Amino acid sequence: PVRVGQKVPNFEMETYDPSTGKFGKVVLEDLLKERKWVILFFYPADYTFVCPTELADLAEKYDELKEMGCEVISVSTDTKFVHLAWHRDEPLLKNVKYPMGADPTGQVSRLFGVYDENTGLALRGTFIINPEGVLVGSEVNFYNVGRNADELVRKMKANVYLMSHPEEACPAKWEPGKKT
Amino acid sequence: PVRVGQKVPNFEMETYDPSTGKFGKVVLEDLLKERKWVILFFYPADYTFVCPTELADLAEKYDELKEMGCEVISVSTDTKFVHLAWHRDEPLLKNVKYPMGADPTGQVSRLFGVYDENTGLALRGTFIINPEGVLVGSEVNFYNVGRNADELVRKMKANVYLMSHPEEACPAKWEPGKKT
Amino acid sequence: PVRVGQKVPNFEMETYDPSTGKFGKVVLEDLLKERKWVILFFYPADYTFVCPTELADLAEKYDELKEMGCEVISVSTDTKFVHLAWHRDEPLLKNVKYPMGADPTGQVSRLFGVYDENTGLALRGTFIINPEGVLVGSEVNFYNVGRNADELVRKMKANVYLMSHPEEACPAKWEPGKKT
Amino acid sequence: PVRVGQKVPNFEMETYDPSTGKFGKVVLEDLLKERKWVILFFYPADYTFVCPTELADLAEKYDELKEMGCEVISVSTDTKFVHLAWHRDEPLLKNVKYPMGADPTGQVSRLFGVYDENTGLALRGTFIINPEGVLVGSEVNFYNVGRNADELVRKMKANVYLMSHPEEACPAKWEPGKKT
Amino acid sequence: PVRVGQKVPNFEMETYDPSTGKFGKVVLEDLLKERKWVILFFYPADYTFVCPTELADLAEKYDELKEMGCEVISVSTDTKFVHLAWHRDEPLLKNVKYPMGADPTGQVSRLFGVYDENTGLALRGTFIINPEGVLVGSEVNFYNVGRNADELVRKMKANVYLMSHPEEACPAKWEPGKKT
Amino acid sequence: PVRVGQKVPNFEMETYDPSTGKFGKVVLEDLLKERKWVILFFYPADYTFVCPTELADLAEKYDELKEMGCEVISVSTDTKFVHLAWHRDEPLLKNVKYPMGADPTGQVSRLFGVYDENTGLALRGTFIINPEGVLVGSEVNFYNVGRNADELVRKMKANVYLMSHPEEACPAKWEPGKKT
Amino acid sequence: PVRVGQKVPNFEMETYDPSTGKFGKVVLEDLLKERKWVILFFYPADYTFVCPTELADLAEKYDELKEMGCEVISVSTDTKFVHLAWHRDEPLLKNVKYPMGADPTGQVSRLFGVYDENTGLALRGTFIINPEGVLVGSEVNFYNVGRNADELVRKMKANVYLMSHPEEACPAKWEPGKKT
Amino acid sequence: PVRVGQKVPNFEMETYDPSTGKFGKVVLEDLLKERKWVILFFYPADYTFVCPTELADLAEKYDELKEMGCEVISVSTDTKFVHLAWHRDEPLLKNVKYPMGADPTGQVSRLFGVYDENTGLALRGTFIINPEGVLVGSEVNFYNVGRNADELVRKMKANVYLMSHPEEACPAKWEPGKKT
Amino acid sequence: PVRVGQKVPNFEMETYDPSTGKFGKVVLEDLLKERKWVILFFYPADYTFVCPTELADLAEKYDELKEMGCEVISVSTDTKFVHLAWHRDEPLLKNVKYPMGADPTGQVSRLFGVYDENTGLALRGTFIINPEGVLVGSEVNFYNVGRNADELVRKMKANVYLMSHPEEACPAKWEPGKKT
Amino acid sequence: PVRVGQKVPNFEMETYDPSTGKFGKVVLEDLLKERKWVILFFYPADYTFVCPTELADLAEKYDELKEMGCEVISVSTDTKFVHLAWHRDEPLLKNVKYPMGADPTGQVSRLFGVYDENTGLALRGTFIINPEGVLVGSEVNFYNVGRNADELVRKMKANVYLMSHPEEACPAKWEPGKKT
Repeated sequence: PVRVGQKVPNFEMETYDPSTGKFGKVVLEDLLKERKWVILFFYPADYTFVCPTELADLAEKYDELKEMGCEVISVSTDTKFVHLAWHRDEPLLKNVKYPMGADPTGQVSRLFGVYDENTGLALRGTFIINPEGVLVGSEVNFYNVGRNADELVRKMKANVYLMSHPEEACPAKWEPGKKT
Repeated sequence: PVRVGQKVPNFEMETYDPSTGKFGKVVLEDLLKERKWVILFFYPADYTFVCPTELADLAEKYDELKEMGCEVISVSTDTKFVHLAWHRDEPLLKNVKYPMGADPTGQVSRLFGVYDENTGLALRGTFIINPEGVLVGSEVNFYNVGRNADELVRKMKANVYLMSHPEEACPAKWEPGKKT
Repeated sequence: PVRVGQKVPNFEMETYDPSTGKFGKVVLEDLLKERKWVILFFYPADYTFVCPTELADLAEKYDELKEMGCEVISVSTDTKFVHLAWHRDEPLLKNVKYPMGADPTGQVSRLFGVYDENTGLALRGTFIINPEGVLVGSEVNFYNVGRNADELVRKMKANVYLMSHPEEACPAKWEPGKKT
Repeated sequence: PVRVGQKVPNFEMETYDPSTGKFGKVVLEDLLKERKWVILFFYPADYTFVCPTELADLAEKYDELKEMGCEVISVSTDTKFVHLAWHRDEPLLKNVKYPMGADPTGQVSRLFGVYDENTGLALRGTFIINPEGVLVGSEVNFYNVGRNADELVRKMKANVYLMSHPEEACPAKWEPGKKT
Repeated sequence: PVRVGQKVPNFEMETYDPSTGKFGKVVLEDLLKERKWVILFFYPADYTFVCPTELADLAEKYDELKEMGCEVISVSTDTKFVHLAWHRDEPLLKNVKYPMGADPTGQVSRLFGVYDENTGLALRGTFIINPEGVLVGSEVNFYNVGRNADELVRKMKANVYLMSHPEEACPAKWEPGKKT
Repeated sequence: PVRVGQKVPNFEMETYDPSTGKFGKVVLEDLLKERKWVILFFYPADYTFVCPTELADLAEKYDELKEMGCEVISVSTDTKFVHLAWHRDEPLLKNVKYPMGADPTGQVSRLFGVYDENTGLALRGTFIINPEGVLVGSEVNFYNVGRNADELVRKMKANVYLMSHPEEACPAKWEPGKKT
Repeated sequence: PVRVGQKVPNFEMETYDPSTGKFGKVVLEDLLKERKWVILFFYPADYTFVCPTELADLAEKYDELKEMGCEVISVSTDTKFVHLAWHRDEPLLKNVKYPMGADPTGQVSRLFGVYDENTGLALRGTFIINPEGVLVGSEVNFYNVGRNADELVRKMKANVYLMSHPEEACPAKWEPGKKT
Repeated sequence: PVRVGQKVPNFEMETYDPSTGKFGKVVLEDLLKERKWVILFFYPADYTFVCPTELADLAEKYDELKEMGCEVISVSTDTKFVHLAWHRDEPLLKNVKYPMGADPTGQVSRLFGVYDENTGLALRGTFIINPEGVLVGSEVNFYNVGRNADELVRKMKANVYLMSHPEEACPAKWEPGKKT
Repeated sequence: PVRVGQKVPNFEMETYDPSTGKFGKVVLEDLLKERKWVILFFYPADYTFVCPTELADLAEKYDELKEMGCEVISVSTDTKFVHLAWHRDEPLLKNVKYPMGADPTGQVSRLFGVYDENTGLALRGTFIINPEGVLVGSEVNFYNVGRNADELVRKMKANVYLMSHPEEACPAKWEPGKKT
Repeated sequence: PVRVGQKVPNFEMETYDPSTGKFGKVVLEDLLKERKWVILFFYPADYTFVCPTELADLAEKYDELKEMGCEVISVSTDTKFVHLAWHRDEPLLKNVKYPMGADPTGQVSRLFGVYDENTGLALRGTFIINPEGVLVGSEVNFYNVGRNADELVRKMKANVYLMSHPEEACPAKWEPGKKT
């Protein structure tokens, strides 16, 4: 698996895109050509319980993250057909606008070290890739501990700030506007 | 490297313990025998700039984490002699009470996948090991993005809660007292 | 992959069982201990188009096949959560009573040679295992050609007849009552 | 062995051709150059009992299959000399007009995974190769269960229909004229 | 392949036995237990042209060879079903009484180095195994040169004579009664 | 070792040629350039007992074989010096005119599979190579059973006849003039 | 590890340079381009007890060694940050002017065979590299025996003398001015 | 080669012992049983120029070193016969009393990494082995730089002192009587 | 091949023994049990030109060598049959009484490194084995240089003398009676 | 090791040349360019007892051998320094004029198979290399049996004679002038 500080090899996934209601495809290289930051948000499975609250929580930050230059993609090992169905059925996902990636072969999940060979599902892992294609942050929680989207936004801000101020460092709990 | 969901192999490190002012040793197996949760808090190097703010920030939560049954150990590849000197010299570390682990061979850093072979230093990685010895959480930030000790406390609480309520799940941003 | 004429190695899968509305598990060895014939009915994915007609068609024969001593299990690489949701959403599946097997790791699909490594989905394959655990029939259609449940019933009858009349043979198009 | 969905490697076999009473040869590549569909119909041995009824049953559909653009070849591991003798001796084979392939080395049988190393005979396997040379259907029955030529014709029709209507799918039991 | 002067590994074959009209089995070890000499007489294929004259020629010597303590077995890679049919159809084989061995897997032919991998047929090879199980004579002719049963009888006599007079030798063209 | 039906690799041997009383050399490729048939006649050792009767017997057929286009070479693992001496000493060899090949390294004997590693001697093997360099006949007798030169002549005639009438076959005991 | 008499592969290290108070880098190739002799002076760790007396002792000879054309570099596996801090804190190091090399990866220590895999520290080793890049002297003491800078100066003088008088030799205890 | 801090494998050498004028043998294990320190003093070759001054210089310290519990052995790859002759011929060696080891196979020289494969001679290496059999000091000079016996005595004293005062350390230039 | 100073592995050879006119066998182990010295005298081939003079020359020393406790065996790769014939035919061999060893497989010649793979003949090598089974002398001449039996006797005497006077040495050209 | 009849690979050695009193070097290729025969005369060690008598004995034949076109080189594993000293000290070597080769690495001794790995000394071996660089004679005696220089001269004469009369052979004890 790729580790923090390394270049991420290219990958692609089929997606269901709730903003258009269509099936599509996401390719890392294409996003990097647009100088995007990429956030991958893995979760175990559609039609389960913790997952929609995490996805809904993330949905609320989507606009803010987009403005920072991020593309957000949620990923599970379900198919795009199931993503479509779940998004239609589950009220909590109403505000989800980011593309939902389908990784039924588990190749992308294996690339980031979150594929569980026993269950065929992905662990709850969040990964930040910078516009150079380097993995700059990872967070993995074992099964049922949910993630905090506020903290993700905080880290993205620090990363973006450091990208344009490479000679500085962001201390603990740093928030933009604070002195580094 | 060990991955989230796997058993962590035993390891040991020499430490400088600021609470007693003595050199000591930390052994994973011993901590697990006491049914401790173990938090490893890796950082690149003593006598650098982001690091003391992270360590100070963590120091403020140490009592709260101890009450939850955690032992916290900070780790860099510096020697215990250097930890003693730095703690003595650096005013920001005044309140640090947790043992400071010394990993000059890099063996513990390699075990958790945060050893940088080019520099001989550790990446900023935080790892939570539960009392069964299983790695249940990981977070790694590339170089200069500092970590948030509040978020660490939140995750620890969720983990502790789930340990005694295994049939539940902690949704995103969950805080104790909230309904799961 | 196991071939016709060979012993099938044991396997197990999680299931959604529409007759009880509960999640369960199917284990080959357990079925063989009850001297069951086992029919595995693989299809590519839930929430797609040919598949529900095949499953509905098979549902009409389920009672007849059970009387012959068969257990029927449909299998895709979707999770049991998705099977539950699809069965609930899709009117064509109303009469499906047989357990729906979940193979998200693809292990059972690989065992029968129908796992497509490019898509992570299973080909349309039907497999008949006799009460000795020997694979006695296979049929695989490339993607969108649907299967014929009547023909499956015909072959099961011939197999069952031959089991108790081992010295005979069932000629082409044989139907019970006909002279062999 | 080649699997459904894969390209079939080229092969050739000597044949006895009952329509001319002569020995000949069949080469996959030559048939594909004529844009033929190819049906291989394996059976264990000449001068046995189930086999001639299957071959006779298939003989009745030969004209219909030819009109759809198929070439049908029966295959056993007997020599072409034996095919000639058996066709001459066995009244049930009177109407067999398709070439009878001889595979005494077992190479073609091994290619399709139906060679039984213990007996040197082929299992009862039917294989459909499309004009692109891709294996699109397989069916294998263990020893004495005969095949159903009607079902073979049904599947060929569905395959041919889908070839010219690639965006559609043929549901279970589909017959031409039915809506897909 | 086994060479002259070596012990022959055990083997078995299915047979058609014209003297009883039944199918049977021949096992080398069983013949050696009865202290038999064993003559294996390989030929390419049933229903071909040179072969029946060789088999007929050998049939005339069968009684004489039996009296010397030999069992004679003809072998081709055809099945026992074909042997039965050919023996029934071919007038030249009327007097054949020795068992006709079936080697459709080619295992026995390979053991004696006469299996032709290109055609799946056996070369015209004759092999003499003594009652100790040692191969004492071999003769192989390429395709269409027929063998001479008189010469085979001559060699058998010399072998039998030498077995009971081990200190002697049989010069060229030796016939019993002649001085060695 | 080379087998019947295969191309024989080139080889050469020193010889004693009784017709000239001189030492010489025989090279397979040179004989094939002259479109010769080549008969190799191996025997265990000079100055032993069966051997000279076989060689004398063969000597009587030498003219007849030469007329058919054959070169005959006797071979043992003795040196050419010993061949000269033996031919001079042994009255039975008086009529031997064909070259006597010397194979002290055993390389030619190994090539034809008649070298006995325990004794360093050659088994009694006869080999016929056609003008294309293909091995078309082999015969090997264990130690003391002598060969029959009449039978060798019969087989050569059949081989020569078939070379010019490739569409025919020579049945058992065939002699020229007989109908094939 | 490199041995006396061998060419030393190129290496580089980060340094703290007390003469300027700045961080820098030392590269073997660059020093050799200036035709320098290079003395590497390894010691276990900063902030320990024997070490500063050795470094102070060496500091007194630094000017004399520089005049002879030497560059002196002290090396431990501590970081450059720690070197800076120690030099600032430790009065005994006041006169140290030579660059202090940082080898936290242990690569340079391994190259000279003084890396202790158990502790991650370097043994007390001194190495002399001549301007051709050849290792011409080594001395290693186990842990707590200090080195003698006078003896190092004596050896350097002998080496420098021999470089310009290659036909001579420096006997035991040789000092410049003495006859060789 | 053995490195400082490691156990030295046992070895033995033939010697010429000038104190008795006899040939003998030295075995490491025997010396360690007597709790000796062992000093090995390698030099390139007898009958050369630097070497006798080094040996003579060492001879003057021999009594002092013996009193400390050391055995001194000089070693070259010459034979014991040559040692005897050289000691007899060379006036500078008159006072040499320690055994002169002969290592014509180079095995002991290779063990300490001072064997030069190009010349078959040993480099000028001095090695100190403590009574536990651990190598505690090494010094190697390239070819013609002579060693200093005074410095060797100083180091031996420091080693002996530390052996009985393990909690202390000997700083640079330490001499007994000085405070550590 | 075995070298001087090594133990000779056991070997055996068939022989022709001219003193009895019978075939026999020589076994190294048997000769050593009788405490014999063994001289092996290899030569290229019987019925050649240099060889008989060497053998005749050796024959004259045979009694003298026997008295010293030697067994002499001449060896070529010819058979024992040829040895008998040659001894009978060749007047120069009239006085040869020692056993003539036959090594047609070349195994003994290979053991002593004198087998020529190109010709299958042995080089002219003489080997002396002492009663302990150790090879103590070898001499090999390329093809046509004859050996000197006087010199062989001289060496045997020196060897025998040294066996009973192990503390002495036999200088160049030593003859018994001379002072060593 | 090189064997009689093989090409000798090139080698070189340092020498002490008593005729000039200087050190030098001998290179096989250079001697062969001058069309020399080369005699290598190995012995165990300088300053031992048998050796000087052998070397003195050889010295008496040196002029005669030179006239025949030979270069003679004595070889031991001692250094050239020791050769010089021994030649100076040992009265028996007074007449030695041929170069004395030094093989302290044992490479030349290993090439000729006379290096004793246990002692680091060479066995007493004599080797004759002809002007084509082919090894044509070898003789090895175990330790203390001295060689006979007269016999060496005899063999050289036979070799030289045969070089110019290749069609002849030198029988046993041949001396020039005798008829071959």
